[in-house]
Amino acid sequence: MSTNKQMNLGFLFQISGVHYGGWRHPTAQPDRATDINYYADVVRTAERGKLDFCFLADSIAAYEGSADKQDRSKDALMSAEPKRLLEPFTLLAALSMVTEHIGLVTTATTTYNEPYTIARLFASLDHISNGRAGWNVVTSANLAEAHNFGRDEHVGHADRYDRADEFIDVVFKLWDSIEDNAYIRDKAGARYALSEKIHFINHVGNHFKVRGPLNVPRPPQGHPVIVQAGSSHPGKELAARTAEVVFTAQQTLADGKAFYSDVKGRMAKYGRPTDSLKILPGVVVYVAETETEAKAKYDAVSSLVPPDFGLFMLSDLLGEIDLTQFDLDGPLPEDLPEPKGSQSRRDVVVDLARRENLTIRQLYQRISGASGHRSLWGTPAQIADQFESWVSEGAADGFNILPPYLPESMMDFVDLVIPELQRRRLFRTEYEGSSLRDRLGLAHPKNSVANVS
Amino acid sequence: MSTNKQMNLGFLFQISGVHYGGWRHPTAQPDRATDINYYADVVRTAERGKLDFCFLADSIAAYEGSADKQDRSKDALMSAEPKRLLEPFTLLAALSMVTEHIGLVTTATTTYNEPYTIARLFASLDHISNGRAGWNVVTSANLAEAHNFGRDEHVGHADRYDRADEFIDVVFKLWDSIEDNAYIRDKAGARYALSEKIHFINHVGNHFKVRGPLNVPRPPQGHPVIVQAGSSHPGKELAARTAEVVFTAQQTLADGKAFYSDVKGRMAKYGRPTDSLKILPGVVVYVAETETEAKAKYDAVSSLVPPDFGLFMLSDLLGEIDLTQFDLDGPLPEDLPEPKGSQSRRDVVVDLARRENLTIRQLYQRISGASGHRSLWGTPAQIADQFESWVSEGAADGFNILPPYLPESMMDFVDLVIPELQRRRLFRTEYEGSSLRDRLGLAHPKNSVANVS
Repeated sequence: MSTNKQMNLGFLFQISGVHYGGWRHPTAQPDRATDINYYADVVRTAERGKLDFCFLADSIAAYEGSADKQDRSKDALMSAEPKRLLEPFTLLAALSMVTEHIGLVTTATTTYNEPYTIARLFASLDHISNGRAGWNVVTSANLAEAHNFGRDEHVGHADRYDRADEFIDVVFKLWDSIEDNAYIRDKAGARYALSEKIHFINHVGNHFKVRGPLNVPRPPQGHPVIVQAGSSHPGKELAARTAEVVFTAQQTLADGKAFYSDVKGRMAKYGRPTDSLKILPGVVVYVAETETEAKAKYDAVSSLVPPDFGLFMLSDLLGEIDLTQFDLDGPLPEDLPEPKGSQSRRDVVVDLARRENLTIRQLYQRISGASGHRSLWGTPAQIADQFESWVSEGAADGFNILPPYLPESMMDFVDLVIPELQRRRLFRTEYEGSSLRDRLGLAHPKNSVANVS
Repeated sequence: MSTNKQMNLGFLFQISGVHYGGWRHPTAQPDRATDINYYADVVRTAERGKLDFCFLADSIAAYEGSADKQDRSKDALMSAEPKRLLEPFTLLAALSMVTEHIGLVTTATTTYNEPYTIARLFASLDHISNGRAGWNVVTSANLAEAHNFGRDEHVGHADRYDRADEFIDVVFKLWDSIEDNAYIRDKAGARYALSEKIHFINHVGNHFKVRGPLNVPRPPQGHPVIVQAGSSHPGKELAARTAEVVFTAQQTLADGKAFYSDVKGRMAKYGRPTDSLKILPGVVVYVAETETEAKAKYDAVSSLVPPDFGLFMLSDLLGEIDLTQFDLDGPLPEDLPEPKGSQSRRDVVVDLARRENLTIRQLYQRISGASGHRSLWGTPAQIADQFESWVSEGAADGFNILPPYLPESMMDFVDLVIPELQRRRLFRTEYEGSSLRDRLGLAHPKNSVANVS
């Protein structure tokens, strides 16, 4: 089976891990949730494992969904750790000073930001980290975000994607507005810069009017790496056109292969080779020397999810429907009400329940660990087998690791799984190149405005 | 004269210094302008001198003024170093990791940002730096900034200040929306937070509608230190109401005293004691063991300003008027055209020219070093005498040091002036307390929303 195809591995850094029982784990350190040294400890462990990048999934609200829902679920929410308590640009810039190689990726929404601001933050982070920045481009469909930015309703789907399309174009132009060699800094000749290499972009579109140039020189990577996670039709199109890394939640090898070939199949019409985009399904890993021990780790953290929060969270994933009307130890009813949120996210959860015949209680315990992503437990060899088969069979170019509880799950992964992958020659033993782009095997982008005056 | 009144000292960090000849100085290192280690070197020198804070004056455009002016002045602009080439939040967050004590202050405009975004960035920087963040609140009157944010004209003065007023209020509420002790993180009791200590702010005003809460806990300082620099009437009012540090350009002791008592005199009606606001005039310092050597340092860097850039910069300070019609070796004419920019900034420059009988050429050389601020050269004792007299006579609570060329001017200041101030017991020998607020002698602010449900 082995083709020795190298895989890429990032990890999602949520404070005490992605599992909703994570912060209560005996080894978890939730009291350090605003201590920069805690974040430094975890990310340095990942760098010891030669991981490609650390990913901070961001949101610009404390909660998700409507204000009503926030009020209704207030008690449930108080038993969960927030997904984030620091702002990602400041956090990643700080982490860049205590690491040397690992990539630094965060979300920034195109719905409630301005392209000049976002272009500048990522360009600066890329300089400060010597070429390690990545941008997870999202649109905001979260009512709580709308309510923090002057809107009563969130922006409609088509409008959001139209704005996102234009937003990305403006950011690209701004990153390219000062050419790589514009600053000559000739002291004797009293010439700091060459005016022909600094460009007004004069962008005028449906959503934005931006003159430029950016006040940060072109990033060391040309463009920070573009990451996306949309699985709707316009989301996949945007990814096929602009993304270099795609995050996705896929529960089965068959689904993974279908998604992989769907997205890669859309790239040709944009003139892009398929290897210029890496598809990384998310996976929650519990690893130990024996399968029994690994399963025990899963069971231990699952038992730590408070039932009220588990039910709230499952309701949220299914599209804000009321689950208290159903028997927790019975199956998910066939005729669920219409979802308020993402249909595709709901489908993944419903499919999982049907496939494994889970009760509502079993389902929220399963989902509590993974936010709709796949969970795996086993020995290092079993985990590596799974990784290897997905990569060799065309379902993944690597994985986005979702540590269930931190810092321990990251240490387990680095100490047990990484050596097994290295032994099989499926993962690097030393960082190659100097940028995140180099590690992902992505080309340095051409300057799109260099010939425009 | 001496009262041993302790002074506060910050410094303005522009890449190779504030003097427009700075980047051409033999000791300057402009090639390191995007190298984070360069910034770390300079700020660690300031920390060795126990300075209160490092200040990054920000702008969200590559140039100032109209697009026309940018085109017209393209050649002149190419002989100057940009005032900034990295984004300040990422830069300060990175610097927080290589320093322990020095405050980290930057500008953020209320005109083209959203309060949720700015509240979050400063709150996070304050956590990451353990209480060292400060916010220089400004409004944007720069056409080039307007043109990067979808506007053809900049926002009118009254509107800008009205928006700024409300912006600050919203930011304060957001900083206070999660109380200091809201997160109890009780693993055994499965209780992460206390809902009664986390508040929707439900702000609805003329400019903003923001529900909250912020998704960052209350900053260690309660509120990061509020800095302002407006010298217009509404600017002074806003400062008297909300500022804790005021930057100002004052050329003479008499002007300094008048400004000081004006601003402090406005505080009583807001119920604020005068020592809850520190007034720090800017000053460019050239220091050496003898006055002759110090003057030679000034002359050397002044000779490095390219004439085309000097004239452009003077024209800009006077309000975008065309100076090429006048004799460079004659005086500034009495009947200058109306300024397009700030009247108060122009007045400072015109007064300087009249007072010292400077030709246009002499004026731009003088101004090139200081952007309208006062320049001083002398021995350590002469500089300390000046500092001491301004503080003891009620013109200043300390100073914002503007190093003319870096890194050398910062080393000179720390090695020569600081020990003299310490010898006179006018400046600390060790950092006191743990936060920027502690160093400035400012109280920890009360929580404004803690009793609101």
